[in-house]
Amino acid sequence: LTDSGSGLLGAERTAATATSGERRTTLRFAHPVAVRGSASVAGPVEARGPLAGRFDRVIDDHLVGQRTWELAESRLQQMAVELACDQAGVRLADLDAVLGGDLLNQLGASSFAARELDRPFIGLYGACATLGAGLLLGAALCDAGHARRLAVVVSSHHDAAERQYRFPTEFGNQRPPSAQWTATGAAAFVLERAPAADDGGAADGGRPCIVAATPGRVVDWGVSSPYEMGAAEAPAAADTIAVHLAARGVGPERFDAVATGDLARIGRPLCEHLLRERGVALSLVDCGERLYDPDRQDVHAGGSGAACCGLVLAADLLPRLASGAWRRLLFVATGALLSVTSYQQGESIPCVAHAVEIVAAGERGAEA
Amino acid sequence: LTDSGSGLLGAERTAATATSGERRTTLRFAHPVAVRGSASVAGPVEARGPLAGRFDRVIDDHLVGQRTWELAESRLQQMAVELACDQAGVRLADLDAVLGGDLLNQLGASSFAARELDRPFIGLYGACATLGAGLLLGAALCDAGHARRLAVVVSSHHDAAERQYRFPTEFGNQRPPSAQWTATGAAAFVLERAPAADDGGAADGGRPCIVAATPGRVVDWGVSSPYEMGAAEAPAAADTIAVHLAARGVGPERFDAVATGDLARIGRPLCEHLLRERGVALSLVDCGERLYDPDRQDVHAGGSGAACCGLVLAADLLPRLASGAWRRLLFVATGALLSVTSYQQGESIPCVAHAVEIVAAGERGAEA
Repeated sequence: LTDSGSGLLGAERTAATATSGERRTTLRFAHPVAVRGSASVAGPVEARGPLAGRFDRVIDDHLVGQRTWELAESRLQQMAVELACDQAGVRLADLDAVLGGDLLNQLGASSFAARELDRPFIGLYGACATLGAGLLLGAALCDAGHARRLAVVVSSHHDAAERQYRFPTEFGNQRPPSAQWTATGAAAFVLERAPAADDGGAADGGRPCIVAATPGRVVDWGVSSPYEMGAAEAPAAADTIAVHLAARGVGPERFDAVATGDLARIGRPLCEHLLRERGVALSLVDCGERLYDPDRQDVHAGGSGAACCGLVLAADLLPRLASGAWRRLLFVATGALLSVTSYQQGESIPCVAHAVEIVAAGERGAEA
Repeated sequence: LTDSGSGLLGAERTAATATSGERRTTLRFAHPVAVRGSASVAGPVEARGPLAGRFDRVIDDHLVGQRTWELAESRLQQMAVELACDQAGVRLADLDAVLGGDLLNQLGASSFAARELDRPFIGLYGACATLGAGLLLGAALCDAGHARRLAVVVSSHHDAAERQYRFPTEFGNQRPPSAQWTATGAAAFVLERAPAADDGGAADGGRPCIVAATPGRVVDWGVSSPYEMGAAEAPAAADTIAVHLAARGVGPERFDAVATGDLARIGRPLCEHLLRERGVALSLVDCGERLYDPDRQDVHAGGSGAACCGLVLAADLLPRLASGAWRRLLFVATGALLSVTSYQQGESIPCVAHAVEIVAAGERGAEA
């Protein structure tokens, strides 16, 4: 029974003691998993925000030539996967699997995209935390050699989400300032196993690599308003960040950024506050605040949607790691697991956050 | 770069040539992953079918003391995970993760169950194929040592599904004979890594073990009626079965049973026909036909729902492997990835099937 080929903290060694004293799980990848390619496809509102000019493709039509917003979202996923493959220099047929998710009921966007992509497909749902689950599972499959190379893809579409979760989109209902704006777009990431890190430190293949990840537990502090998703998600994000740092034996200063998505303007400081209470002092970068300009764009508290943190990761965060400007990123996708049914039945909002640690080429994967 | 600790068919070796000639993915686990515990919680209709007396728990109230059917379904998941832990002789706190899914919008049942279970949670959606994805990913995480032990759980609830997908449940609308009956219930499976198989053949720890798995691609042959789900799913099931057999280099005679779920009375013979066209002659056991008695129960073409194949696996198929009556099972969960939105927009039904190969204790994991 050898552990040599897999990314064990394994067995007892995965056990981290969070400040609450409970046992938790953090995965460490013995073979850092390279982000060989990534791509962002942004909607027209997103393309006019602070990240203008950095997206791989911008659509100027919410329908992208499709009959419905739902099929349009599906088309965005296809485009993102195809672009990420182009960027990685691989063919679609070279993907051993696609892990995908979105916000539509029954993963409508992902399922129809997967039909066109024609690769083995597994659907994931974690609301706006879906990308975290996808990168974690994708890295685990690549690390273990179960996939040579795979794609992780997420999407959201403002108009499709609006009518599914809230009111008919054309109705243009007013929303309180704490509400967030569901992003239109898709982001895809091609992962593959990089050379082993434990031979002396190089964890690259020249690309940013995923070296560790923490799956979150579902946390619900009783927020029940779908217009307060940042506040609802903050405790889940704080929990996962604290657990990940404890498991890795490092403080937040070890990272150039701890990036959450999407707590936005209200949830982000709440999360920082909760972390301070657990003895972790840091300033978060929040993808929901990065994607839009609150002074020029009427997005209320900021962005949300499964695509939001994906767009920011692909267009803003990963390029900083690729250029060497940053050495180490903790990317924490956060999600509110409500449905219209649960909301209408008066339930509060269970939330989850999954953390993925990504390092620049040449950076050591192991703990400090 | 060693491959010793992980279940490589890996890299080039995962490539199987299906009869269509394309490259596909099959995972083989070097450390067979034991199903250490399993549990089934069945609804009142299910408990009166052919598997009466074999479920771990039966509920006689569709609400299980909850306010809503959705919360009731969530409660069924909790019960199933707790019972599976009991059966495995482990505590809930010993689970490194829970992978769960259901049919409700935004995985309503799983998300609320995960809130109570309080373990790291990743949500999966593959309609009635969800259990296949969960067992595949769960086995991959255990095989690689990323989880010491985890639970996979699925559920469905007839009344909650009926009103979400079709009409108000109390309306009791008539359905055509090809329609399937969404099962009420939940099933959970506790997985953990067994001793390595390659030291001489014993792949047990005394329990049935998952030794290989094939994630399916999304297949859509144009069936658009939600009352024809068996027919819609048949091509996806046939595709995954053919790919798995080719990758493993064996014929169907290698298995005591190839069990699909849930093609039911119309989809099952269609799938057998499609396999014959690909040169594979076999008689399938279908979970949608096993769960109910068509002569005594008014379920039309048979069962469906994410719980259907889970209930049959836990209550009927796994016990045959545990007793040694069967040595080798190919379990193929099948799912129809439609939503009310996609159906109302006139789209056809994309389908997927994931195959998991499970062997009796002491049975070799490797190919014949």
